[in-house]
Amino acid sequence: MTDRTEITSLGEFGLIEHLTKNIEVNNASTLIGVGDDAAVLDHFGKQVVVTNDLLIEGVHFDLMYTPLKHLGYKTVVVNISDVFAMNATPTQILLGLAFSNRFSLEALDDFYEGVYAACAHYGVDLVGGDTTTSQKGFIISCTAIGEVAPDQYVKRSGARKGDLLCVTGDLGAAFLGLTLLEREKKIFLETPGVQPDLEGEKYVVGRLLKPEARRDTIAFFAEAGITPTSMIDVSDGVSSEILHLCKQSDVGCVLYEDKLPINDETRNAAFKFNLDPTACALSGGEDYELLFTIRQDDFEKVGNTNDISVIGYITDSEAGAHIITKGGSKHRIEAQGWNAFQ
Amino acid sequence: MTDRTEITSLGEFGLIEHLTKNIEVNNASTLIGVGDDAAVLDHFGKQVVVTNDLLIEGVHFDLMYTPLKHLGYKTVVVNISDVFAMNATPTQILLGLAFSNRFSLEALDDFYEGVYAACAHYGVDLVGGDTTTSQKGFIISCTAIGEVAPDQYVKRSGARKGDLLCVTGDLGAAFLGLTLLEREKKIFLETPGVQPDLEGEKYVVGRLLKPEARRDTIAFFAEAGITPTSMIDVSDGVSSEILHLCKQSDVGCVLYEDKLPINDETRNAAFKFNLDPTACALSGGEDYELLFTIRQDDFEKVGNTNDISVIGYITDSEAGAHIITKGGSKHRIEAQGWNAFQ
Repeated sequence: MTDRTEITSLGEFGLIEHLTKNIEVNNASTLIGVGDDAAVLDHFGKQVVVTNDLLIEGVHFDLMYTPLKHLGYKTVVVNISDVFAMNATPTQILLGLAFSNRFSLEALDDFYEGVYAACAHYGVDLVGGDTTTSQKGFIISCTAIGEVAPDQYVKRSGARKGDLLCVTGDLGAAFLGLTLLEREKKIFLETPGVQPDLEGEKYVVGRLLKPEARRDTIAFFAEAGITPTSMIDVSDGVSSEILHLCKQSDVGCVLYEDKLPINDETRNAAFKFNLDPTACALSGGEDYELLFTIRQDDFEKVGNTNDISVIGYITDSEAGAHIITKGGSKHRIEAQGWNAFQ
Repeated sequence: MTDRTEITSLGEFGLIEHLTKNIEVNNASTLIGVGDDAAVLDHFGKQVVVTNDLLIEGVHFDLMYTPLKHLGYKTVVVNISDVFAMNATPTQILLGLAFSNRFSLEALDDFYEGVYAACAHYGVDLVGGDTTTSQKGFIISCTAIGEVAPDQYVKRSGARKGDLLCVTGDLGAAFLGLTLLEREKKIFLETPGVQPDLEGEKYVVGRLLKPEARRDTIAFFAEAGITPTSMIDVSDGVSSEILHLCKQSDVGCVLYEDKLPINDETRNAAFKFNLDPTACALSGGEDYELLFTIRQDDFEKVGNTNDISVIGYITDSEAGAHIITKGGSKHRIEAQGWNAFQ
């Protein structure tokens, strides 16, 4: 048995002190961090990027198969992924947490261990937040702040006809990790005591439980002198994100099924579940890769290096958004990504 | 009967579009608002202040007696109050909302009407956020961003021996508004159909349901050339906030009971409930006034104008934090403010 310390034994301010006492500041822009009414930042002539996400137990994560440490890490990653998607560098986060009294101090410590690990890995400072009770479940609000050199940010709306459509890494793995863990959960609930069978599934499970954000891609853009014409991160599924880029840029696109980057383990997991790997890649979501467009002139710079795949190109708006299958047929792309309200 | 539109009929992105379509930008610092991965801000050489609050149904508010429009307004006020407490000017907010399917589009519109009213009143831009479902209840996460001239921010930790302890407005009213509405709720639940008896209680109820943040005080400081030595906003109760200032400044204080600003209606409401008005003023919370310290030299500038009361002075840390009662006896100040974990 592990120890259990009741949160009530510390009180609200004691808890905040406990959770934040070892914070080390990484960024010169962090003037005042945790412990005042608000944090104070100085980005010295840079522009500021800010984004917010809510993660709700039972909607966005299941604590039955999500270790709290991983959840803490993922909370940070999910949020700073949006900062990278603006071509910016994350510098600070604020964390708002609400939890019921079923959470012990040790459980919170696990969560914060993951938060601090991600902060250290990405050089981000935790500078504030809020801690309170919930009536039900664990509720996480994360705000990420970043900086970008003046007017170097990349919007969703800048894609132009002829631009190349690119994506980092590979797609669909997190969705198959989720499918697998949901199956194991069902088996466990029906037959408690059965150990999960995750043999050979490390990659897809890891992509779900401990995703990383594409800091390397932003660094590569800066080194190579590439400014994408538009960019978005892949959270809801690449087809949904492509439609965002097309709508906000007022363009269409052609996407090639055989160019979609899919890891072998993802493909094998899909076959095991009788799922189409392409459908998983298009609609799976939670990949936290970057989807972006570049001018054709920049094609040489990207090459096939840096974990970037060219998956299609941008067309006129009137042409719509289509995928060319391996068999050569053409289908309209439809958003089947994750929708909280379905 | 009012119309009811199901959120599901719009989907997540349709909903966001509906709720944000009429946004007008107030601040030059807002470069990119709602509709991208993140907002982009340029504070042109100013420092940036950022704070985050979670408001949870059943913990922080009761929808049985809180109109959604008021809740939207209050959400913004509660958050930007923390920005004012840094001597900064709020410029942007991000709003994360989670709600169950018992909420209709019309209900959300009411909430946003309040949000936009507060944004207009305080000149703040809504620049982003997140919208999702909850398993239970209405969950609000608000992040407020503000700006301050370099190094003009005011921390909690700058109070020095001999400084005067001041508070804006009056105290305890919101707590009595809450006490009153909780009583009316109880009566209503026992005897449905009974109309609430709020005769003569407009002030205390208004202070709970539609608080304002002290923008005027920050403007006065700038005009009068006063920089408080420390400052905090009164959310948990003035005794709790005083102890924060004393602890973080490593000082003690003396507070005079007869100097505590209490509105007549607050006093009458307290008597009706057999409560001590002073206890309500000290421990009530949710006043969203500013508690601050100034150098004695600035006393003349403050005078008795601008809705500011001098309520005591700062002492050595060893002397502790005390209140002198009207009868002349001296008591140690104890934090009895709101604690989410009690």
